[in-house]
Amino acid sequence: MSLAIGVDIGGTKTVVGLVAPDGNVLNSRVVPTPAQDSEALFAVVAEAVAQVAANVTGADGGAVVGIGIGVAGLVDAPGRIVVFAPHLAWRGEPVAARFEAMTGLPVEVENDVAATAWAEYVFGAGRGVDPLLVLTVGTGIGGGIVIGGQLIRGATGASGEVGHVPFVPDGRPCACGANGCWEQYASGTALTRAARELVVSGDPASQALSQACEGDAEQLDGAVVTELALAGDPASIAVIARIGALLGEGLAGTVAILDPQLVVVGGGAAQAGDLLLQPAREALAARLVGAAFRPVPPIVAAECGEQAAMIGAAELARQRFGAAQT
Amino acid sequence: MSLAIGVDIGGTKTVVGLVAPDGNVLNSRVVPTPAQDSEALFAVVAEAVAQVAANVTGADGGAVVGIGIGVAGLVDAPGRIVVFAPHLAWRGEPVAARFEAMTGLPVEVENDVAATAWAEYVFGAGRGVDPLLVLTVGTGIGGGIVIGGQLIRGATGASGEVGHVPFVPDGRPCACGANGCWEQYASGTALTRAARELVVSGDPASQALSQACEGDAEQLDGAVVTELALAGDPASIAVIARIGALLGEGLAGTVAILDPQLVVVGGGAAQAGDLLLQPAREALAARLVGAAFRPVPPIVAAECGEQAAMIGAAELARQRFGAAQT
Repeated sequence: MSLAIGVDIGGTKTVVGLVAPDGNVLNSRVVPTPAQDSEALFAVVAEAVAQVAANVTGADGGAVVGIGIGVAGLVDAPGRIVVFAPHLAWRGEPVAARFEAMTGLPVEVENDVAATAWAEYVFGAGRGVDPLLVLTVGTGIGGGIVIGGQLIRGATGASGEVGHVPFVPDGRPCACGANGCWEQYASGTALTRAARELVVSGDPASQALSQACEGDAEQLDGAVVTELALAGDPASIAVIARIGALLGEGLAGTVAILDPQLVVVGGGAAQAGDLLLQPAREALAARLVGAAFRPVPPIVAAECGEQAAMIGAAELARQRFGAAQT
Repeated sequence: MSLAIGVDIGGTKTVVGLVAPDGNVLNSRVVPTPAQDSEALFAVVAEAVAQVAANVTGADGGAVVGIGIGVAGLVDAPGRIVVFAPHLAWRGEPVAARFEAMTGLPVEVENDVAATAWAEYVFGAGRGVDPLLVLTVGTGIGGGIVIGGQLIRGATGASGEVGHVPFVPDGRPCACGANGCWEQYASGTALTRAARELVVSGDPASQALSQACEGDAEQLDGAVVTELALAGDPASIAVIARIGALLGEGLAGTVAILDPQLVVVGGGAAQAGDLLLQPAREALAARLVGAAFRPVPPIVAAECGEQAAMIGAAELARQRFGAAQT
């Protein structure tokens, strides 16, 4: 049995896990990310990898064939170099080569959303569905695309940036430097903004939201809004429904281009489940070109959870480096 | 040498040609399209195919291995059925099977923009470039995508509908039934609309445009505006530049999703050449996510001309049905 180690390097914490071919995580560690210290980051991850690998015993009966690393940022198409990672110190960093030298194992680096998409394609809600579009809706909106059994990486590794499709001309400023990006209207950040605006407006309907944050709108976040909505608060449900509709409306663009068989939605905002996804489905069906003449792809919740990027990165590495040993 | 017959069925005329493996058109015919009479359309195309095929003589030294048919509309992913063609009477029509019965040759049906993209990929401005995005900018904006050496057809054959990506919320109504589609702002139709509005406004700068249509703005079309612009008329140049900028701005979305190595632009509006494409390049570079950290794909004019869809459809059929005979 060929095992692989998956790593998901986030802005605050890094998850390292030993993953079996069936997607099961045999053991894992979570360590803080030294985000702004490149050398410390290499050292911390390499140490966690060594610890996880050391736990491979006769009981597992396998060998570690490689390491897959998911990073929020731009990774070159061959999966060797982190070109730019907004939350980390890495700029043009040869991450794969560095970790190979440190661990003695072959390494593949991948954008974390692409790794998440691969997990959903192999083990999750999009199992075997092709073409497949996976969205992560959280701080922003990320996209991962599988076509012909392959992760689509683009010419430079920069594909899948669905969150930055122009959505409103001269609209809200985005962290990317442009204005009016879709993720400014349909992400978890947009959800939080809408809930805060409702509280600040003093609308009586916002009572439950206002109580939850003790009147300090800045304390609200998407998790609180989702919790209230799931508990039945109409204002929170309405806020999530509005974001869901904008999610579906923007999706009509990406679906028009890619024509996926299914759209899987993960990320923090997906915790709201059908409160978010049902308005998205309706907006997609209303807005998609040719919806009268073609099946509109279903939108379903992701299944691989918070460890999806780690599991997907491990599976990518296992398939790439361990084919002969499966 | 394996030859193939290409057919491009347009709303008013149909082009049928005998195409060599190097993309050369050995002979061709243009016939009027009986757009609203399905049976007459089958008969007219079959007759033209028979005439073109009859011209295969010893001099060509080849055999016809199949027929490729390009149609403006939704074609199912296997290339057998025209699901919906807005300008023709075909709805759910088994076009491939019908022509196979009529001609005795294997037939592949393809969306005309996809066929155009294939021609540009095999013979034209995008020769061997992968991933490749091809746009046709005319009445609307169509898209064809090549990834991994394959035309991307999507789950239902409906991929590449880039013209219907939402671009302006509650914007101009589109023939697709939605509002604010990109093609309402950056197509040849949008170009004509902008020129007409300028003439109607009575702006002194519109003098040349006004003279060209003898004051009747409705007589203006994209070809006239392009002609005036190429002759140096500043107002016509400005109108085309504005459309080009909106083309580039919208392209930033499709490029963010697909990350192509190159964008090839064909269709009527591309006649304006760099007057359209240079503003598009600048807008794409200004709007594309991560443009500071990645190469921005060049935008170049298509090379295969008006016969591109016919040539591409023939080449698709040649590769699919004639592999053993090349």
